[in-house]
Amino acid sequence: MHHFISGMAGFIGSHLADSLLRAGHKVSGADDLSLGRLEHLENAHRNPGFRFFEADCSQREAAIQTLRAAAEWGGRPHMIWHMAANSDIAAGVSDPTVDFSRTLMTTFSVLEAARDLGVRCVAFASTSAVYGERAGQLEEDSGPLLPISNYGAAKLAGEALLSAAAEAWLDRIWICRFPNVVGHRATHGAIFDFISRLKMSPVELRVLGDGTQTKPYLHVSDLISAMEFVVANAQGRRNVFNIAPEGEGTSVAFIAKQTVARVAPGAAIRYEGGDRGWIGDVPKFRFSTARLAGLGWRPSLSSDAAVLRAIDELSAAALGQQRSDVLV
Amino acid sequence: MHHFISGMAGFIGSHLADSLLRAGHKVSGADDLSLGRLEHLENAHRNPGFRFFEADCSQREAAIQTLRAAAEWGGRPHMIWHMAANSDIAAGVSDPTVDFSRTLMTTFSVLEAARDLGVRCVAFASTSAVYGERAGQLEEDSGPLLPISNYGAAKLAGEALLSAAAEAWLDRIWICRFPNVVGHRATHGAIFDFISRLKMSPVELRVLGDGTQTKPYLHVSDLISAMEFVVANAQGRRNVFNIAPEGEGTSVAFIAKQTVARVAPGAAIRYEGGDRGWIGDVPKFRFSTARLAGLGWRPSLSSDAAVLRAIDELSAAALGQQRSDVLV
Ligand SMILES: NC(=O)c1ccc[n+]([C@@H]2O[C@H](COP(=O)([O-])OP(=O)(O)OC[C@H]3O[C@@H](n4cnc5c(N)ncnc54)[C@H](O)[C@@H]3O)[C@@H](O)[C@H]2O)c1
Ligand SMILES: NC(=O)c1ccc[n+]([C@@H]2O[C@H](COP(=O)([O-])OP(=O)(O)OC[C@H]3O[C@@H](n4cnc5c(N)ncnc54)[C@H](O)[C@@H]3O)[C@@H](O)[C@H]2O)c1
Repeated sequence: MHHFISGMAGFIGSHLADSLLRAGHKVSGADDLSLGRLEHLENAHRNPGFRFFEADCSQREAAIQTLRAAAEWGGRPHMIWHMAANSDIAAGVSDPTVDFSRTLMTTFSVLEAARDLGVRCVAFASTSAVYGERAGQLEEDSGPLLPISNYGAAKLAGEALLSAAAEAWLDRIWICRFPNVVGHRATHGAIFDFISRLKMSPVELRVLGDGTQTKPYLHVSDLISAMEFVVANAQGRRNVFNIAPEGEGTSVAFIAKQTVARVAPGAAIRYEGGDRGWIGDVPKFRFSTARLAGLGWRPSLSSDAAVLRAIDELSAAALGQQRSDVLV
Repeated sequence: MHHFISGMAGFIGSHLADSLLRAGHKVSGADDLSLGRLEHLENAHRNPGFRFFEADCSQREAAIQTLRAAAEWGGRPHMIWHMAANSDIAAGVSDPTVDFSRTLMTTFSVLEAARDLGVRCVAFASTSAVYGERAGQLEEDSGPLLPISNYGAAKLAGEALLSAAAEAWLDRIWICRFPNVVGHRATHGAIFDFISRLKMSPVELRVLGDGTQTKPYLHVSDLISAMEFVVANAQGRRNVFNIAPEGEGTSVAFIAKQTVARVAPGAAIRYEGGDRGWIGDVPKFRFSTARLAGLGWRPSLSSDAAVLRAIDELSAAALGQQRSDVLV
């Protein structure tokens, strides 16, 4: 089957492409390379069943033309995995147009392209941020949904657009609400930032907030496995799933300490203070994963274990890059 | 105080302008006249504390310039009542760009204009449609929020954008979720449609659906009173209120029968069948109004009474128009 991925050169999109190719599918996709990297697709490119399009999916016409080109190459895609977005939440606080164009308009335009071509199934990378800041376990069917970042708002808007389309012309949607996702190829997030900063200055690590921010971290391998499982097994018209590890999540202090220990032992950690990293950051949340467990999927790594593995993967990659910097 | 109304030449916006002027406020506002009518503002225009701007609020630059012009005229507005939208739900089904531009982009752009000027309070005309199709009484804090129309999706997106702005730079938002609103100056909705069609052909009235669609109808006078009450009395940062009459709501069959009886007695009513009027129509819903009642507001008219009064008002207006057609 032919799968189309928007945001395919990104962290998660590229892992998804690899996984779908491994399963024997044809895979095409688009990315404007604003945050994505072509090197993430190096493996995929070796596969003849793979095709990449550089395109800005926030433009309705570009999205339509790209999907048509993908269909010409590999037949009408069986489904779309819509991953394209601005993944930099903090960037969207100072400039609301970033999330509006990269997160919200991409969703609108990709949906328009799907409608144009008659693709009837869409999986969507949503987020915990749609819940806003709420106490207690976050259940899929609970409200209110009052996001506190433009990123969360744009994602909730995307969910809503998909839901409406599911009434009029889509057969099936899967709204997957991700927690923090970590692992190889990540180009943003706390672990990535800490490693980058420790590379620049290995004596001190400044950390936004007071270190108590505590969230679930999921390894990208588990995320891909969960998404594929949900798409294969959730057969409603509108399927909404939290995807997360079990347990209480991992604190920023733990991530800082473990990153320092592995990357720059002895570096001092300095907390900038305040209960959150930036305006729009939800400092603590806990996903209910009962629905996903009920469907039959369980993560292989705990939140702490996912963080540790990601520190290893990202620090090894950073080291590799340093080495090749030196070699060049 | 100076109030700015987007969508001011519309049905509800023009009543709101009248009411705020009566209370002694300065009122300015904008409308692109796509669905609004200048004659709705005839009364308001006689007031020196009133100013109208013709502008397309879906364009970020136009919205910013218009709000700046309003501030030059009457000082920085104390708050914005954001009413501009595509109010034609069915139109948004066939062409998703309608709601995207008129309902979603207007909200984004009006917010950008508010941010530009430093206006810190926004009241928003939201809708029952954000709840999608769900059984039971709809409570403000309940989920899921899975709209079934592009209109509902665009409104939920608007709520989300406001909620995010309330984190970063707005002091206070009031999200008012309206039911069906009826009364003088309405230019859409079942009553308006039935009267228009009976004027064209007074022997038969064709009605979409099977007549059992049952929803709460609120008279516009009660709506304005409720919105003003909520804004004056709800002092949270994010205030979300259903606004509705008490009781079970009114069926389409009741509206059809009463309209025929008053406008074209003897006309046959033919139901087109199906449980709903169009794709994206939610055939039955019931609002919980406990929160609004708790704040201290109660509607003066029941749903049936609001419908009957609106039939009288709209048929009298239609008659007036027919007369003036004849006079011309
Ligand atoms: N990584 C996480 O922790 C996390 C958490 C919740 C949700 N998500 C969502 O998962 C998806 C993938 O995230 P990621 O972590 O891989 O981030 P990423 O930035 O690596 O991937 C997003 C990709 O979208 C591309 N993109 C952005 N705007 C585009 C446009 N206009 N046209 C085409 N492509 C465009 C970027 O270039 C990038 O390659 C995103 O939708 C993100 O919001 C990620
Ligand atoms: N009437 C109802 O039953 C009802 C129910 C729920 C919500 N609402 C909401 O209440 C608000 C007012 O609705 P209404 O019934 O008065 O409808 P309306 O169509 O009479 O008013 C909306 C006004 O917005 C204007 N407008 C549309 N696009 C614009 C743009 N790009 N720039 C500037 N102005 C623009 C229209 O010209 C119109 O005058 C709308 O936001 C509507 O969605 C109405």
